Order: sequence, then structure tokens, then C-alpha cells
Amino acid sequence: MVDMGKGECHAVHGYTASKGSYLRRMRLIEGQVRGIQRMLEADEYCIDIMTQVSAITSALKAVSMALLKDHLEHCVAAAAREGGEVAQEKFDEAMTAIARLAR
Amino acid sequence: MVDMGKGECHAVHGYTASKGSYLRRMRLIEGQVRGIQRMLEADEYCIDIMTQVSAITSALKAVSMALLKDHLEHCVAAAAREGGEVAQEKFDEAMTAIARLAR
Amino acid sequence: MVDMGKGECHAVHGYTASKGSYLRRMRLIEGQVRGIQRMLEADEYCIDIMTQVSAITSALKAVSMALLKDHLEHCVAAAAREGGEVAQEKFDEAMTAIARLAR
Amino acid sequence: MVDMGKGECHAVHGYTASKGSYLRRMRLIEGQVRGIQRMLEADEYCIDIMTQVSAITSALKAVSMALLKDHLEHCVAAAAREGGEVAQEKFDEAMTAIARLAR
Repeated sequence: MVDMGKGECHAVHGYTASKGSYLRRMRLIEGQVRGIQRMLEADEYCIDIMTQVSAITSALKAVSMALLKDHLEHCVAAAAREGGEVAQEKFDEAMTAIARLAR
Repeated sequence: MVDMGKGECHAVHGYTASKGSYLRRMRLIEGQVRGIQRMLEADEYCIDIMTQVSAITSALKAVSMALLKDHLEHCVAAAAREGGEVAQEKFDEAMTAIARLAR
Repeated sequence: MVDMGKGECHAVHGYTASKGSYLRRMRLIEGQVRGIQRMLEADEYCIDIMTQVSAITSALKAVSMALLKDHLEHCVAAAAREGGEVAQEKFDEAMTAIARLAR
Repeated sequence: MVDMGKGECHAVHGYTASKGSYLRRMRLIEGQVRGIQRMLEADEYCIDIMTQVSAITSALKAVSMALLKDHLEHCVAAAAREGGEVAQEKFDEAMTAIARLAR
């Protein structure tokens, strides 16, 4: 009756425990994005802008990797313990997300 | 006295003509970053957040590619016409930026 | 006495069932690598060589993604069912492999 | 009569001077690809195989970056000096190759 597998994933997400840290990281990234806008307005050098854009991309990739780690350790692990179709679905979904990251 | 090669790059950047379009793209990206913050606050599903983070990464990559194209066609082309050390410096700098993009 | 979790991973690997298919793919890739050597020897155009190198990189990435999928569905799933340190170790190891793919 | 721009690119490629070094690198990569085949035949651990596949991908990326550098410094630089459509074509072609590298 209590479905631990799904429960661990749908009520409380893998990232919930560190939600505050994710929010802080996304606010820093928002600041970096506004920084690029200022650089463009100040006619800064193209290569310097590209360097800052790459820094944002790296920061976003790190957020994605952390979300994936939390997701594997909570949602996917719970689904694996359940087994069957639920597990297969979670694995397929995780692979799609990883493929997007690896592109 | 007029150094066209450098001039084309330092007074007017490769991206200057389309500065408005770059600013618009960066404002859209800023909106997407705030969207992620709302998703985290609303406890949305980890995989859905990762999908949106990937969308931002793709948008930023597209901005970088466009900046690089403008940079090659203006600054690097001008330096290539000048030749010598100026050209070599621009090529090395462009390769460093491309390596960062290709990581 | 029978440790299904570990057994599923150490005696028979995730990829074992499709070993023949992986070997065929790696032989095709070997052929593509030799193709690049012939292109270099025939002084073919740099951009054409780069295109073929990218094709090999894509083929290798596809092999890695397939290996990862098999690994998650077998070894990591088995470790998740065991839980504890064994599971944590497998998750950390998988994340390291994914980080390498996402670089 | 003598078209230096095109000549520099079609008769002698950017990579010609270091053709021997490129061939050596591609032979090393061929050896690494055969190494993966032996690992599969010996039923080695999936993660170890993935690590080796990543090493080949990195080696191929390094070859592509070196080819691109030679191409920019020779073919693209020559086309930039010619200017006009020839230059535009080379820039577009280089951007396509860079986009493939950055994927």
C-alpha cells in the first residue's frame, strides 16, 4: 500500500535535501547571465564574452551532474529495488537525460 | 596610420552589428534561468529540471557559436590579412576559445 | 551464499549478452580509423578528414552510451538492490564515467 | 595566374608538414581500438572499457583540434587574404566543422 519506490521519488525528490544549494547556484548563474548582457552593452571583446559564456555553461553542467547524481541515488535506486517496468522506465529516462548531457 | 586590421576588431567588434539580437538572446536565457529557480521552488521532477537546464546550455552554445562566427569573419579575417604575429596571436586565441567550446 | 548482486556484475557483465555486437562495432571503428590513415596518405582535404574523425567520435560515443545503459541496468541495478556501501560505490563509479562522457 | 590563396590549400594542405605525426597518432589510436576488442573478448569490467573508449575519444578530439588549427592557419588564412566569396565559403565550412566538434 505504501509504495516506497515511487514515494521516494515523487513526494520528495532526489534534490530536495539540497534545494537551497541548488537555488543559490542558479541565482549565481542568473548573475553571470546578466554579466554577459553588461559586457555586450559595454562593447567588450568577443573572446572575453565567449569565455564568460563558457563559464556559465560549465556551471550549468555541474548543476546537471549534481541533479543526476541525486536522481540516480534516490529515484533510480528506489526504482531498481522495485524492479520490473517501473525500474526499466526510470533507467530509460535516466539514459535519455545522460545522452542529452553527453551531446 | 589607420590600422584597418586591428581597427575592425577593437573599435567595432564582430558582434556589434547584431548586438541587439545578442542582448535579446541573453535576456531570454536569463528568463530560462529564473524558470529553473521556480521549478526548484515548486519541487518539480528532477529529470524535468535537467531537461530545462540542457535547453539553456544549448541556447548558450548557440550564442557562443554565433559570436565565434562573427569573430572569425571580422577580427580573425582582418588579422589574417595583416599577417605576421598579429595573425598568429588571433589564431591562437581563437583556437583556445574553440577548445573550450569543444570540451 | 549466492550473492546475486555482485554475481550479476562480476561474473557476467552488463554487456556480455551483446558482446558480439560490441565486437562488430569496434571492428567497424577500427576500419574507420584505418580509413583516416589512407585519407592522410592520399593528401585529402583537411575538412573531409575532420568530418570522418567526427564520425568515429560519434560511433565511439554510441558504444559508450550502450555500455553505460547495460551497466546501469545490470551492475548498478543489482548494487542498488543490495544497498549500503556496495550501492554507493557503484553510483560514484557510474557518475565518474558519466562525467567523462559529458566532458 | 598563380592563385596563392587556393594554392596554399588545395595543392599543399594545412596538415601536410606534419602528416607523419598525424599518421603516427592515428596508428596509436588504431592500437587503442584493438585494445578495446581484446578487453571485450577477455570479459573485462564495463567501466574499465568505457574509460578506455573515453581515452580514444579524447585522442581523436586532439587530432581534430590540431587539424583545425592547421586548417585555420593555412587554408582559412589564405582565403581571408583573398577575401570575397572564397573567404566566406571557407569560413562557413570551418564553422560547420567547429559545430561538429562542439556537439
